[in-house]
Amino acid sequence: MDVELINAFVSSTVNVVRTMAQTELKVGKIGPKSGRTTAGVITGVIGMASDQISGNLILSFDEPSILGIVSRMLMEQYSEISDQVVDAVGEITNMICGGAKSELNQKGYVFNMATPMMIRGLNVEISQLTEGPVMSIPFQTQDGWFVVETNLSKKA
Amino acid sequence: MDVELINAFVSSTVNVVRTMAQTELKVGKIGPKSGRTTAGVITGVIGMASDQISGNLILSFDEPSILGIVSRMLMEQYSEISDQVVDAVGEITNMICGGAKSELNQKGYVFNMATPMMIRGLNVEISQLTEGPVMSIPFQTQDGWFVVETNLSKKA
Repeated sequence: MDVELINAFVSSTVNVVRTMAQTELKVGKIGPKSGRTTAGVITGVIGMASDQISGNLILSFDEPSILGIVSRMLMEQYSEISDQVVDAVGEITNMICGGAKSELNQKGYVFNMATPMMIRGLNVEISQLTEGPVMSIPFQTQDGWFVVETNLSKKA
Repeated sequence: MDVELINAFVSSTVNVVRTMAQTELKVGKIGPKSGRTTAGVITGVIGMASDQISGNLILSFDEPSILGIVSRMLMEQYSEISDQVVDAVGEITNMICGGAKSELNQKGYVFNMATPMMIRGLNVEISQLTEGPVMSIPFQTQDGWFVVETNLSKKA
């Protein structure tokens, strides 16, 4: 996967979470995703598509990280994965994808975004019908961790 | 959801499953999806996106229906949800979406398709960040059943 593409998702994630939830992130070691299951307890997914490129953006959060982010974002204390928290995961996925889309647009990668989906549950088996690798970007918050996974690439 | 949109997914599903797996389908009663969980044991998902419209196509199969379809499609007997069956669900999702895309394209609904994803497991909680309803189309095969769900619609 193109470094330019990965960097756009990293910077958009850092910006969105900082701006929307006053949360600073530490970026971990980026590498190909291993295994076929969701990393966290709640997962946001959004499809990206154009004539030239396609892929998915997947965000998967552990419980402490998402409860912290959503509590600061909505200025209300959440102590469990309620329907509001699930919907907020969809909103965050949408915003991060939108940020990366704007940045990539300027670099000539043009695509549109599908409707965000949210999948609840740890170790849910998800795979993709894709040739290339799915890259995994781990992030650390003050409360916990989440991963951003993407396989956005040029169509064969 | 527009009837024209729903009809395109119905006819593409019937055509693809007939052509690829020599399987005739009975279409059940179409209505809004109730609940937030996967209907079957293996589920294919694909995002659809353009400037004007967005949504997801979701196919969820019970075990007998998908084993029958994939066995006839790949001309080999499958008796469990192996990785090949999982990948075949992604291929079938892709083909059905592609068929609907061609038909809808001629009617002025233009969109691109993201990368197909496959989710394994019964009662996996999936929801979508969408205003409108998700429509559910049940199909019966000689072996079992599956549902096609979509919320493709004009962007707000």
